[in-house]
Amino acid sequence: MKILALNCGSSSVKYQLYDWENQKVVAKGIVERIGIGDSFIVHEVPGKETHREEYECHDHITAINLVVHTLESPTKGVISKISEISAVGHRVVHGGEKFKRSVLITDDVVKAIEEVQHLAPLHNPPNLAGIRGAQKVLPDVPHVAIFDTAFHQTMPEYAYLYAVPYEWYEKYGVRRYGFHGTSHLYVSKRAAALLGKPAKECNIITMHIGNGVSHTAIKNGVSVDTSMGLTPLEGAVMGTRCGDLDPAVPLFMQQQLNVTPKEMDNILNKKSGILGITGKYTDRRDVIAGGEQGDKRCHLALEIEAYRLKKYIGAYYAVLGRVDAIVFTAGVGENAWLIREKALQGLENLGIIIDFEKNKKTFSKSGETEISTPESRVKVFVIPTNEELVFIEDVVAILNGTYKDHTEHQYTFLK
Amino acid sequence: MKILALNCGSSSVKYQLYDWENQKVVAKGIVERIGIGDSFIVHEVPGKETHREEYECHDHITAINLVVHTLESPTKGVISKISEISAVGHRVVHGGEKFKRSVLITDDVVKAIEEVQHLAPLHNPPNLAGIRGAQKVLPDVPHVAIFDTAFHQTMPEYAYLYAVPYEWYEKYGVRRYGFHGTSHLYVSKRAAALLGKPAKECNIITMHIGNGVSHTAIKNGVSVDTSMGLTPLEGAVMGTRCGDLDPAVPLFMQQQLNVTPKEMDNILNKKSGILGITGKYTDRRDVIAGGEQGDKRCHLALEIEAYRLKKYIGAYYAVLGRVDAIVFTAGVGENAWLIREKALQGLENLGIIIDFEKNKKTFSKSGETEISTPESRVKVFVIPTNEELVFIEDVVAILNGTYKDHTEHQYTFLK
Repeated sequence: MKILALNCGSSSVKYQLYDWENQKVVAKGIVERIGIGDSFIVHEVPGKETHREEYECHDHITAINLVVHTLESPTKGVISKISEISAVGHRVVHGGEKFKRSVLITDDVVKAIEEVQHLAPLHNPPNLAGIRGAQKVLPDVPHVAIFDTAFHQTMPEYAYLYAVPYEWYEKYGVRRYGFHGTSHLYVSKRAAALLGKPAKECNIITMHIGNGVSHTAIKNGVSVDTSMGLTPLEGAVMGTRCGDLDPAVPLFMQQQLNVTPKEMDNILNKKSGILGITGKYTDRRDVIAGGEQGDKRCHLALEIEAYRLKKYIGAYYAVLGRVDAIVFTAGVGENAWLIREKALQGLENLGIIIDFEKNKKTFSKSGETEISTPESRVKVFVIPTNEELVFIEDVVAILNGTYKDHTEHQYTFLK
Repeated sequence: MKILALNCGSSSVKYQLYDWENQKVVAKGIVERIGIGDSFIVHEVPGKETHREEYECHDHITAINLVVHTLESPTKGVISKISEISAVGHRVVHGGEKFKRSVLITDDVVKAIEEVQHLAPLHNPPNLAGIRGAQKVLPDVPHVAIFDTAFHQTMPEYAYLYAVPYEWYEKYGVRRYGFHGTSHLYVSKRAAALLGKPAKECNIITMHIGNGVSHTAIKNGVSVDTSMGLTPLEGAVMGTRCGDLDPAVPLFMQQQLNVTPKEMDNILNKKSGILGITGKYTDRRDVIAGGEQGDKRCHLALEIEAYRLKKYIGAYYAVLGRVDAIVFTAGVGENAWLIREKALQGLENLGIIIDFEKNKKTFSKSGETEISTPESRVKVFVIPTNEELVFIEDVVAILNGTYKDHTEHQYTFLK
């Protein structure tokens, strides 16, 4: 059984074809510049040369057609006919309060995703375009939606409500939703496995640090708080997003710069964070190198990022009361030992003791690694994330009729 | 020697006359509705009946004249002539980065306060009107400015800078400043005295919880982080202020409600916080009573407020690494045992153990009280704040030429 996972952005379609029986990715790639002009596909098959082809895609349906025809192409493809694809899993960023788990896509589901698209105007419309396109290209197979927000729907009311006029929640859905759910799900389950305990008995702080960054407090296996909010703008300092900020600042600066709310939102999402502080970089490798070469603002960006991570670790420690493990994941979390070191040092009174040498040698390629010392009451792990595997397993389980809530579902990676 | 302390708001002047030699307040009061119409003074002298008088004040100078003439009135007054007032201390909310301590007011100081008034447009202009008015009414005595922000000027760069375009800091002064400085100063020094250690050796978390709320992480006696930011809107949930919030929310809601940045700022400052959640109350006594009577949103407001306090305790615990004491102060912090209990429970793994019975019996009138158990590694104190005493002592020390940085100054309340 082969499952196609799709992640549709406003001008791109990322895909991965997964062979369930053999538990491996058979092909993956991306179509870029959809609807912009000069669009192209980059298609990778393990063990083969990467294929790149210019192909004009004015819309998502054309792009998905291109993906499917590339997959079944006699020269570059990996399947002999389209019908080998048994199902499609679609990443949907915002599921609002309606979706607490992955679901088979029906007309009602599409309608419900449309209803919350004002909450993610940059993400849900292309997600929907991808669903509609793929349903036309692959009309005979089940389509499944996997939501970034679903994992966090276990948060208690006092953690997800903001102290704003209550009717903003009732009328406009203003509350904390949280994102990166599949990543937090995956690494927390893996951490439980490494701890040798059922996930339901584990309290874990997960630190997903990529270009986007979010942290989650997981109590007895479920999300009880997370750093991203109504939108992915809140929380940690990110590549280009400001994260936590006095809410008066955007209003103050709107008046200083005479810009609209949308323009201000764009500045805070695209021109802030590490890029805002350094004035030039988002890639932490550039920032670390800049800092080493004496660039004051690069050094500052690292200090700010790590300091904020430390504050979240403390805050979620207090929320959980007892912490079994802290997990670092995603591009920066897996590879930037310096940021991990700065965030974790000085926390001995919280029972967190780092093996600095081991931490320095730990990267994605090291695989799952414990970077705390044997005496550390709280274990600290670096765990490479695998969101796609959650996608695939949810799709397969829904197809097989064995899908349950993530707390009950028997993922293959629980052991 | 008698010192007059003034706190001038947009339509009010609060005052206190302090007898330095006898260490007591000889009179205090307020002029309200300045420039609005129907203004009046309420004047209190310990042991005498409160005096209330209607008197039309179109501006701050008229109000300050009224204060001084009430103080020297043969019937209601406490001094025989104006010249008994030796100096005036003025509360100034925003000192920007220029003022790291209290200062004698000169023309340059007035100019510098004017230069940062865009950062506190609601507060600094009336503070300045009060200074100018008082200088005219009392031209022959020294005037001193005491800043809400000064105590926090020891924060490191990585704690006070936001992850926004760096030029916002350079051009517009966008950074964390923090407020309630004199209160955090006072209670942290008192906590050090109760711990029996020099303030310079103490790590303390101070929780100032009144209608406005702010928390400070104090390391080796100085502020290293605080929850209020560019403005007093950031941080904890307050009576009417939202506190921490996804910075995308104000921008999203501006578009939904079609309001200007100023109108949104007003909603977040005046109609949010506890008022926003409950829809009716700001006074925590009403909220607690409502919660007890089964009002769901009152209950929720308490849970949200306490939960956020707990997160700050954890965050600042991580910042400090070692915490000697946590202090609760101001109206709510001193009196709302239920909020303290909710915020502090479940923190045993951080070495914080509360004596619940003692906590329940502790109010402002109890005086300085330790509410942690003897085994608690972190001491928890309730300490009634006394911002005015800091005002008075700074003024006297400046007059006497003995004033130093707060880390060196010999306040009377250090022991």
